[in-house]
Amino acid sequence: MTALDALADVVGSAACLTAPDDIAPYAVDWRGNYRGTPAAVVRPGSTAEVAEVVRRAAGAGLAIVPAGGRTGLCGGAVVSANGPAAVVLSLERMNRIRSIDARDFSIVAEAGCVVQNVQQAAAEANRLFPIQWGAQGTAQIGGMLSTNAGGIRTLRWGNARELVLGLEVVLPDGRVLDDLRRVRKDNSGYALRHLFIGGEGTLGIITAAALRLQPAIKRMETAFVAVPSPDAALSLFGRMQASGADVIAFEICGGFCMEIASRHGVGLRVPLPLGSPWYVMVEIAAAHESVPLRDMLEQTLGEAMEAGEVTDASLAESEAQRLGIWKIREDFPECARKNGPSVNTDTAVPVSAVPQFLERAEREMRARWPAGRMVAIGHMGDGNIHVALQAPADWAGSRADWSVHAHDAEPLINEIAVSLGGSFSAEHGIGQSKRHAMVTHKSPVALDVMRQIKAALDPDGRMNPGKVLP
Amino acid sequence: MTALDALADVVGSAACLTAPDDIAPYAVDWRGNYRGTPAAVVRPGSTAEVAEVVRRAAGAGLAIVPAGGRTGLCGGAVVSANGPAAVVLSLERMNRIRSIDARDFSIVAEAGCVVQNVQQAAAEANRLFPIQWGAQGTAQIGGMLSTNAGGIRTLRWGNARELVLGLEVVLPDGRVLDDLRRVRKDNSGYALRHLFIGGEGTLGIITAAALRLQPAIKRMETAFVAVPSPDAALSLFGRMQASGADVIAFEICGGFCMEIASRHGVGLRVPLPLGSPWYVMVEIAAAHESVPLRDMLEQTLGEAMEAGEVTDASLAESEAQRLGIWKIREDFPECARKNGPSVNTDTAVPVSAVPQFLERAEREMRARWPAGRMVAIGHMGDGNIHVALQAPADWAGSRADWSVHAHDAEPLINEIAVSLGGSFSAEHGIGQSKRHAMVTHKSPVALDVMRQIKAALDPDGRMNPGKVLP
Repeated sequence: MTALDALADVVGSAACLTAPDDIAPYAVDWRGNYRGTPAAVVRPGSTAEVAEVVRRAAGAGLAIVPAGGRTGLCGGAVVSANGPAAVVLSLERMNRIRSIDARDFSIVAEAGCVVQNVQQAAAEANRLFPIQWGAQGTAQIGGMLSTNAGGIRTLRWGNARELVLGLEVVLPDGRVLDDLRRVRKDNSGYALRHLFIGGEGTLGIITAAALRLQPAIKRMETAFVAVPSPDAALSLFGRMQASGADVIAFEICGGFCMEIASRHGVGLRVPLPLGSPWYVMVEIAAAHESVPLRDMLEQTLGEAMEAGEVTDASLAESEAQRLGIWKIREDFPECARKNGPSVNTDTAVPVSAVPQFLERAEREMRARWPAGRMVAIGHMGDGNIHVALQAPADWAGSRADWSVHAHDAEPLINEIAVSLGGSFSAEHGIGQSKRHAMVTHKSPVALDVMRQIKAALDPDGRMNPGKVLP
Repeated sequence: MTALDALADVVGSAACLTAPDDIAPYAVDWRGNYRGTPAAVVRPGSTAEVAEVVRRAAGAGLAIVPAGGRTGLCGGAVVSANGPAAVVLSLERMNRIRSIDARDFSIVAEAGCVVQNVQQAAAEANRLFPIQWGAQGTAQIGGMLSTNAGGIRTLRWGNARELVLGLEVVLPDGRVLDDLRRVRKDNSGYALRHLFIGGEGTLGIITAAALRLQPAIKRMETAFVAVPSPDAALSLFGRMQASGADVIAFEICGGFCMEIASRHGVGLRVPLPLGSPWYVMVEIAAAHESVPLRDMLEQTLGEAMEAGEVTDASLAESEAQRLGIWKIREDFPECARKNGPSVNTDTAVPVSAVPQFLERAEREMRARWPAGRMVAIGHMGDGNIHVALQAPADWAGSRADWSVHAHDAEPLINEIAVSLGGSFSAEHGIGQSKRHAMVTHKSPVALDVMRQIKAALDPDGRMNPGKVLP
């Protein structure tokens, strides 16, 4: 029996793909930047099958690349082009919601569950699964956890990490770490789960998770606001928070972003005139019907206007208008792509350092690429701003031609963020694309401890080789 | 130069205690259950001094037992009686608040800061540091994090773990892991800090932390409620949560607890007549002035009364009355101690399993110790109930005589919790007292991974030997 036959024997031949056409979609990452052909794509249907595949792959000297919805932006779910022979282990067939307990505000879902399905199951139980980001209709729970996904509501309910009560993980040696408990307090030894959350499959394969739910949101108020500067946006954010309103999203966008959205958006309507240097999208919410949200929002915006922090504001008057505001945010990446090639980053700084970060980024990018155009949009409430360097409007070259600037622009932005006490990788993870940044920006002590842990848990380096650690 | 002289040379001789009288307070744990004499008590004044002490102790073959406010309940901060020669490394002199940034909702505090001082500094900046528990006036930040402390507000803001943005840690080899950043999103490799949080000093010494703050609470409403059963209490909890009120504490107490509090409490007044089988203390809060909290609480309690979940309720009419309700809860452990010897536990189960847990615990304890009295009090909102077996009212023996039942009663309660998907150590940690329970109740796979990590980071076993891992 060949190695691949031995794997097919575990999952059934229909779930072990080896034909080039079947494998092709798994051989390239979401952005099309990374390619690597797996020896096979293995799709186990149970935790026991995952464990057996891991054991047999190890016996055959094959590495394993775990994959979920494959919407990651850093090439973490494809085989490394220059790495050892590997199979992709796709969790897609493990897509059951094992249980939901409304009284307990918890849900147990398998790794292959699409994130949106978990949101929906929670909503049907009159509960909220709070994580929300663009790819939620395709991304899966396992990938969400392995990359510790963020999104627009992390300022209120945390990253994916904070939503986990318990995990089930298949270890590199094929043993199952069964810690799928739904307890909210547990201090019985080291918090192992936090190694696998955000570990991008390099220490083991998450097969299921017990997740926290929240009370359903009953009311929301959403405003699209023009502000004169990032500093004004920061003051508005502080004012909203200090008011005691429950702020569940606070996004900032440069004026140029709204030009781009107006130009390329399909079915988008920017609620305020173009021309403001910066805009903010803010949403407050209440789980209780009687909270006077509208008054709260109007009062705080009024005070901010008097203080000169806000120049104009449009409040959503209907659910359709509310969704219209968020559609601008969600469709923006696609609009930006249509507008021209760009070099993208994913940095975070302390919230109070956002104005300084943006000021320095703009100044240094302008000095270096006077014809380039700076795009800045992001989760101000988390300090996580996505700064990008777009090609000039009259750029005649290819995307690849412009992308050479990544070699300079990315380290520049990362360096500014890190020098302000920030992170060069806020919510997308490391994968393949940021391994070089780990060398540049991560402390050698932290890298060394990570390598010690990797060597302890996966001494043969079989789990997702070529990812995360440089 | 002797080994101890070499340590005194780092911290100054005044900060290196070797006289028996000076050392005595550090040689016994809070409950008086564990004793172990250190070779010295070393009190460094800076992170660099901690690092140098760790290096020199290693060179001299001395183990290190980190200590904070030493209010832990499991003997984690004293030298193991049968362990290797060790020094206590007390963080008490590292008690500075390094910075507070109200705009950023963050504070950076050294490990030796008393928890209450951090709460106070936050309050002065119009912010909330939400963790709250009885020992907060003595416990220190480093110990709070090393034991991942809980308390009565974890159902709203999480355990100590959830409040951490960044950590500074001295590793077992004396290197400093400097990750004291205040970013809210960071996905650059493994989340190392979660190993040290709850690690009880066995993997390194936390020397400082960047912590999240919250908007200040502007209004609170608190009720003392009589309920017929734990199941009714669970329904009330679900009803409060589903109403959308922001529930920040939800405690359950058996009727016997209120008898004990009435009998032994100093300056305590139970707001309702004794005789109800169970009571609940519930607090809701708002950071915004305009939230109609009182109406929300009265409405939900009214509905619960109609549904038979509540038989009587007393709402705090003043801050004094509010504090009076919480004084009952805070003073309870001392009242219980006065009432007689008891065997204590610290288990958690899924919130929805609390009624079943209490029913089984009572039934099995009654069968086994018909004369013993069951005490049950705890954080229902987290599923963390402290069940204790008290000696009969006419018990003539000593505390030690009764404590022999710990050998049977603890495993019994733990087993019930674990069989319901719970934890045998919810918020107090493992220390010395629950190492045997780790053998009984923790999965061998989890224990093995913990040992791999311990061996990777502290191969010579110098950090807090004899704690956490069995």
